Amino acid sequence: MDFIHIKKLYQDMDSYNEQSVTICGWIRSLRDSKSFGFISINDGTYFQPVQVVFDNTLENFDTIRKLNIGSALIIKGNVLVTPNARQPFEIHAESITIEGTSTPDYPLQKKRHSFEYLRTIPHLRPRTNTFQAVFRVRSLIAYAIHQFFQERDFVYVHTPIITGSDCEGAGEMFQVTTLDLANIEKSPNEKVNYKKDFFGKEVNLTVSGQLNGETYAMAFQNIYTFGPTFRAENSNTSRHAAEFWMIEPEMAFADLNDDMQVAEDMLKYIISYVMEHAKEELTFFNQHIDTGLIERLEHVLHSEFGHITYTEAIKILEKNNDAFQYKVHWGSDLQTEHERYLTEEIFKRPVFVTDYPKEIKAFYMKLNPDQKTVAAMDCLVPGIGEIIGGSQREDDYDLLLARMKETGLSLDDYAFYTDLRKYGSARHAGFGLGFERCVMYLTGMSNIRDVLPFPRTVGNCTL
Amino acid sequence: MDFIHIKKLYQDMDSYNEQSVTICGWIRSLRDSKSFGFISINDGTYFQPVQVVFDNTLENFDTIRKLNIGSALIIKGNVLVTPNARQPFEIHAESITIEGTSTPDYPLQKKRHSFEYLRTIPHLRPRTNTFQAVFRVRSLIAYAIHQFFQERDFVYVHTPIITGSDCEGAGEMFQVTTLDLANIEKSPNEKVNYKKDFFGKEVNLTVSGQLNGETYAMAFQNIYTFGPTFRAENSNTSRHAAEFWMIEPEMAFADLNDDMQVAEDMLKYIISYVMEHAKEELTFFNQHIDTGLIERLEHVLHSEFGHITYTEAIKILEKNNDAFQYKVHWGSDLQTEHERYLTEEIFKRPVFVTDYPKEIKAFYMKLNPDQKTVAAMDCLVPGIGEIIGGSQREDDYDLLLARMKETGLSLDDYAFYTDLRKYGSARHAGFGLGFERCVMYLTGMSNIRDVLPFPRTVGNCTL
Repeated sequence: MDFIHIKKLYQDMDSYNEQSVTICGWIRSLRDSKSFGFISINDGTYFQPVQVVFDNTLENFDTIRKLNIGSALIIKGNVLVTPNARQPFEIHAESITIEGTSTPDYPLQKKRHSFEYLRTIPHLRPRTNTFQAVFRVRSLIAYAIHQFFQERDFVYVHTPIITGSDCEGAGEMFQVTTLDLANIEKSPNEKVNYKKDFFGKEVNLTVSGQLNGETYAMAFQNIYTFGPTFRAENSNTSRHAAEFWMIEPEMAFADLNDDMQVAEDMLKYIISYVMEHAKEELTFFNQHIDTGLIERLEHVLHSEFGHITYTEAIKILEKNNDAFQYKVHWGSDLQTEHERYLTEEIFKRPVFVTDYPKEIKAFYMKLNPDQKTVAAMDCLVPGIGEIIGGSQREDDYDLLLARMKETGLSLDDYAFYTDLRKYGSARHAGFGLGFERCVMYLTGMSNIRDVLPFPRTVGNCTL
Repeated sequence: MDFIHIKKLYQDMDSYNEQSVTICGWIRSLRDSKSFGFISINDGTYFQPVQVVFDNTLENFDTIRKLNIGSALIIKGNVLVTPNARQPFEIHAESITIEGTSTPDYPLQKKRHSFEYLRTIPHLRPRTNTFQAVFRVRSLIAYAIHQFFQERDFVYVHTPIITGSDCEGAGEMFQVTTLDLANIEKSPNEKVNYKKDFFGKEVNLTVSGQLNGETYAMAFQNIYTFGPTFRAENSNTSRHAAEFWMIEPEMAFADLNDDMQVAEDMLKYIISYVMEHAKEELTFFNQHIDTGLIERLEHVLHSEFGHITYTEAIKILEKNNDAFQYKVHWGSDLQTEHERYLTEEIFKRPVFVTDYPKEIKAFYMKLNPDQKTVAAMDCLVPGIGEIIGGSQREDDYDLLLARMKETGLSLDDYAFYTDLRKYGSARHAGFGLGFERCVMYLTGMSNIRDVLPFPRTVGNCTL
């Protein structure tokens, strides 16, 4: 690989001025006249393409000028910085080698394509401006998250994907099996005989790594997970996918306030990182996808997040009930319309809503002294609504057991979990960040199918 | 979280000398006499515990001295650097608050436990020295890998977990379904009716992200995946798990030599990173798990990897056939015994074996000019055997099609893949690194069950 990345040329163009370089890449556009032509070439390392000028001194001039968009080339030429032109520099070709041609039916012609159409060609859409920007930013966000936690000595834990338990006691799950579905063996009472299944029992795809994560937090103090999670929900919305990635930090000797602080610091860290490392992409999103994106991100970066209890939030929301499709009252769950009203209209910045009624939250959340609410928090951000959900966990053995009985959970299945409250229990807290929501938030993309490389939704599992 | 991490105390002990600090953590051991006692406390941030000295001036002295191992404490006290003692510093407690007690039946008493026993308590074993070391190193290796690729501008791609295709056309797969196994609906010809399944067709858990990864390499030039992969192989060995993580970089405009260079650079990068960031853990492994580990890693770090073709390797191995359980000849696959002989006895360092017979390799590998072998490479390392497998990919449309027909693959199912050879094909190459093999290699642990937080193997899916 003796090719110079286009990214490097953009970074150090002055030092390459009038130097000979060799680049590789794919044709984005080509214009030609009788004696010369221009190729816009992208090598995938940088959002901006490079303009290559070629002329009929090249022995394969006539072949080159007839190439189709999408062809792969290797170009040797001289860099010429052009301070007064539209592009900051161009390359004057000394030789152009064809690595691979393309055909006239190449689906990505110069005209603009709808996102719907591009979803039908997931193997080619990363070659477009929008998706190249989306998926580079996706990669950068993932790295920023690792960097944030590793700099703080959090241990990355790979919680299992195939699991015998359902963390939240809810949620539709995918079953995993090696049984032959055409020949399911049943016991006399018509139950499936799982003895011949790979694990000898019924297993599913994970919906959350939290409970497993907690076991490691009680050993390492601070841990995080970052892996795929699954929901077999039959909902065809722009915000739901059957397979998505989640980040779940868990911190021992930490309470709900610590939890919120880490969540806020993390979101700000991600935004700073992307602003520093994907300027071109953010500018593109701001121009073509979501006007106001950069302003919004900068605003978030420089504001303290708001804090409000669920009870206070309900009081504010009730005053606006006329305008809501779903009317709220104390005890009801917040819908996206309520969340967005709070963060966009009332706070005009991200806000943590805390201390929800225990009835609408999971069994593992810590009961507050009022006995009615739990130490939960949701982080709401403008344009999205909930982006993070977390809580302090119930660390009292007896209270946890009581809650589990109340909600009808099997004490045997969760013995590992109650063990954590038996052997050196410590206050602890954590949260979950939906990775795709986060990518949508930082790119302005409005459909989750457009931030997942190969989205899986009801009835849709291509490639 | 106003607690000082024990890691920080070890790093800056002199600046904390005679200062008051507050730490948190769990009791590893406790010795006491009538008027004073010693607690060894670990907070999960550092391999070494801290010794806390307490005496009967504490009002809860009698409670503290009776605490069980595993109890969680918050300790305020003075740091005292002790240059002549076994531990470099200790903390003289001013106050000790009990965060959570433990019980006398706590399974991790001071005595040593077998790995087999510890596998039965996966939620507690990270609290032991060995597993704390293993899983911290696992986390560091994961981060080193991300850092290596991100520093080189590789784009991290999340290839799908649920998939409709089988990358290698081989390998036992897990099926994913939302059908009720007790009531499978069949069509008149006794086939399962998948119309009511979540995706409307038969889907499986991925065995490799490579083919999807290639589509992104043809857009971004350099990409990598890092995600879970699955094999439903009925093999109960110390090297196989049903669920494991894999790293699969893919590079456009790169050939087999580039591929091997990146693989070698990556392995050396990982080793350096762990040596720098996990000195204590490596020392522990070297003393208790695998004598010679550090020497071996240092040797690898400072040697050029060897290179040998499969054909040459077979000639060498045939001379030693008497000593092998499986006799080799040209055309046979290499077994671990042959791999280890090559890397341990012949080369005494890591070695790439290249250009395997096409019959024993996958359809997508590039045919060499000899028409008999393909541009494949396996990287063999001492103590393990194969740790990396890779190849240059067939980038010629017609040759790829011919190979697919030969191996009986459906051209329709792989249209996305052949499209890559139709629209701007470019030479490209990649490899797969089994993450757990890599963790085993760097820790000296010999069973894959002991480097996975919650291992999944035949008949075993606990927690």
